[in-house]
Amino acid sequence: MISKQMQKEVKGSSAIRAMFIEGKEMAKRVGAENVYDFSLGNPMTPVPAEYNRAIIEAVQTESSLELHGYMDNAGFPETRRAVAQDLNQRFGTSFDESHIVMTVGAAGALNVVFKTLLDPGDEVLALAPYFGEYRGYVSNHQGVLKEVRPDLETFQPDLADLEAKLSEKTKAVIINNPVNPTGVIYSEETIRAIAAILEKGQKAYGHEIYMVSDEPYRELAYDGNKVPFLTKYYDNTFVTYSFSKSLSIPGERIGYIAASPTMAGCEEAVGALSVANRMLGFVNAPSLMQKAVAKAIGARTDVAYYDRNRKLIYESLTKFGFSCVKPQGAFYLFIKSPLPEEKEFVEAAKKRHILVVGGTSFACPGYVRLAYCVSHEMIERSLPAFEDLARETLR
Amino acid sequence: MISKQMQKEVKGSSAIRAMFIEGKEMAKRVGAENVYDFSLGNPMTPVPAEYNRAIIEAVQTESSLELHGYMDNAGFPETRRAVAQDLNQRFGTSFDESHIVMTVGAAGALNVVFKTLLDPGDEVLALAPYFGEYRGYVSNHQGVLKEVRPDLETFQPDLADLEAKLSEKTKAVIINNPVNPTGVIYSEETIRAIAAILEKGQKAYGHEIYMVSDEPYRELAYDGNKVPFLTKYYDNTFVTYSFSKSLSIPGERIGYIAASPTMAGCEEAVGALSVANRMLGFVNAPSLMQKAVAKAIGARTDVAYYDRNRKLIYESLTKFGFSCVKPQGAFYLFIKSPLPEEKEFVEAAKKRHILVVGGTSFACPGYVRLAYCVSHEMIERSLPAFEDLARETLR
Repeated sequence: MISKQMQKEVKGSSAIRAMFIEGKEMAKRVGAENVYDFSLGNPMTPVPAEYNRAIIEAVQTESSLELHGYMDNAGFPETRRAVAQDLNQRFGTSFDESHIVMTVGAAGALNVVFKTLLDPGDEVLALAPYFGEYRGYVSNHQGVLKEVRPDLETFQPDLADLEAKLSEKTKAVIINNPVNPTGVIYSEETIRAIAAILEKGQKAYGHEIYMVSDEPYRELAYDGNKVPFLTKYYDNTFVTYSFSKSLSIPGERIGYIAASPTMAGCEEAVGALSVANRMLGFVNAPSLMQKAVAKAIGARTDVAYYDRNRKLIYESLTKFGFSCVKPQGAFYLFIKSPLPEEKEFVEAAKKRHILVVGGTSFACPGYVRLAYCVSHEMIERSLPAFEDLARETLR
Repeated sequence: MISKQMQKEVKGSSAIRAMFIEGKEMAKRVGAENVYDFSLGNPMTPVPAEYNRAIIEAVQTESSLELHGYMDNAGFPETRRAVAQDLNQRFGTSFDESHIVMTVGAAGALNVVFKTLLDPGDEVLALAPYFGEYRGYVSNHQGVLKEVRPDLETFQPDLADLEAKLSEKTKAVIINNPVNPTGVIYSEETIRAIAAILEKGQKAYGHEIYMVSDEPYRELAYDGNKVPFLTKYYDNTFVTYSFSKSLSIPGERIGYIAASPTMAGCEEAVGALSVANRMLGFVNAPSLMQKAVAKAIGARTDVAYYDRNRKLIYESLTKFGFSCVKPQGAFYLFIKSPLPEEKEFVEAAKKRHILVVGGTSFACPGYVRLAYCVSHEMIERSLPAFEDLARETLR
């Protein structure tokens, strides 16, 4: 039968599946238009036309054998170059193609980075609340994930706790920015402070400690907020990226790793990333998608749509009395559960056909996550249900 | 710095890279037309036009959000259905969509299967000579790969050795058919014998032992040879497949796992495969490619081209005096090194600008692999060099 480890994983994942099925049944019972599903972080704004045009152009004009063929495991040189130039233009960095490895999305990128870095027992710090899948990405490679507490006022990390959790065994810190599930953007001040703590740790323990940046929401930043680009603050940094949100193409599994040119042993590290890409079975990022994102590197989905949703839901929910840090990026809202048990609050919401995910999934009990990558109309329709939920639960 | 395990892997892989670079330098020195590179198993026959048409049609007619979007981690229902129906039609099997998981190629599929099956220390048997990447696919999930000797006359597995290597810890046997690197097809008789040994093992040890079939070369079978479809011979079977060779699209990373409907706990197993797909960072097979292979499920590259190459190179090399089992499938030829040290033979070939890979990479020293997925003209041009190599090395 299946492995003991996977039996546990399957159990965990069937809870999410149960909710999904419950939502579908609810839709049958009360009508899909009366179910307010805020549970899934699934992009819903339009795929840019230039991306689809890039696909068709590539198929019609390029040699099919090259277009659909093997290339260096790190990706097509032209795609790696396009990514490097785009980053340099936007962030004043000095990447060239030798620092870029194209990957099967950000999830693939993170697994390739951890495969490259981790020996059994090595520790990876994650800043709570964090995307629950990180646990698997670390345990896949026999690493141990340790959690760093947030400052619950601002949802910036608790820096004293970060310092306390750093140990001889720490190999990396995952920094997801903007943050799923809070929508907070870690400020430049936060990043500088983390960098200083890690520099100190590197000196104290005599080995590299890496920042591993997970940035699928980079392009989703509102109110003119800037997301600090981490290689500018810390040398031993791997930036992982996915085009899933910026182009609304999560199914295509296309992203990259950018290794800081100033990292210790950068060339060796990139060589190892490339080997890990093959060894883990990714082999390379899907080839046609590499060509398409290179051609459409500047294309963006309609980020303003998410912003409009953000304003409506944040303003409405705080007006009803819910408390919540104001999201600056991504498409999530992290509400404090007015009931002591987050589960009861999730159930109370469900009674009003509102589907949300408990903060426990993000290592932060007592909160719930709302994904507002939904139609604006659904948010409008849901507001009376939220108002009613507030009346019952806020006492 | 990078992990200790990866440091070893990088070292191994830089040998292959060194050869690749040497080949490029050789081409500069003597002219590309005078280098006979038989080292890479890279498809070179045309991509079927209907596959490219399927891509364009999907982009032009389907909803972009669905086409490039998330779906169930196992894949689009329509694609899984198309795969199931295709298998049923060709092999008289009884798959439906619930038995199929779409994957990032066969390499992805194998990693998903091993993640699902293996607990630390579990053993996986591989039938030598075998594709060297299997070592990583098993060690990624803390399994232990054990080798089963071949019968060197026929390159069918040594069944007595298989029986001897089976232990309490055996969780799976990888069966690559047709075989990379020999081109041999394991016969129905061989498969029945392996099945009987595994059935006996399951009874003796009181747990499941799985056949994991790796079939990227299934469609490349010559002289009317049939490749046995393993679920018909053994219940606890996972078939892993890639469209890389049948459609000449190795860069696109699209394949699948078919779990035998008669396997113990099939539904649970497929659920676990789906979770493993997500957890390992694949998430799902690239979405547009899923749509395209479903539309072009019956398309094939020009298999006759490889067959023509096979006949020319096999007949010429045996005429020159080299000894080699006659390949029945795939696009490889496995020649016995006439020199006691395979390395010396590889070097002697290289002097004549012939690039081949030593059998040690496939756990079978004393042989070399030739990949004849090259232009027919290159084979013709290379023959005098092979004749010269025979004169020097066959004494």
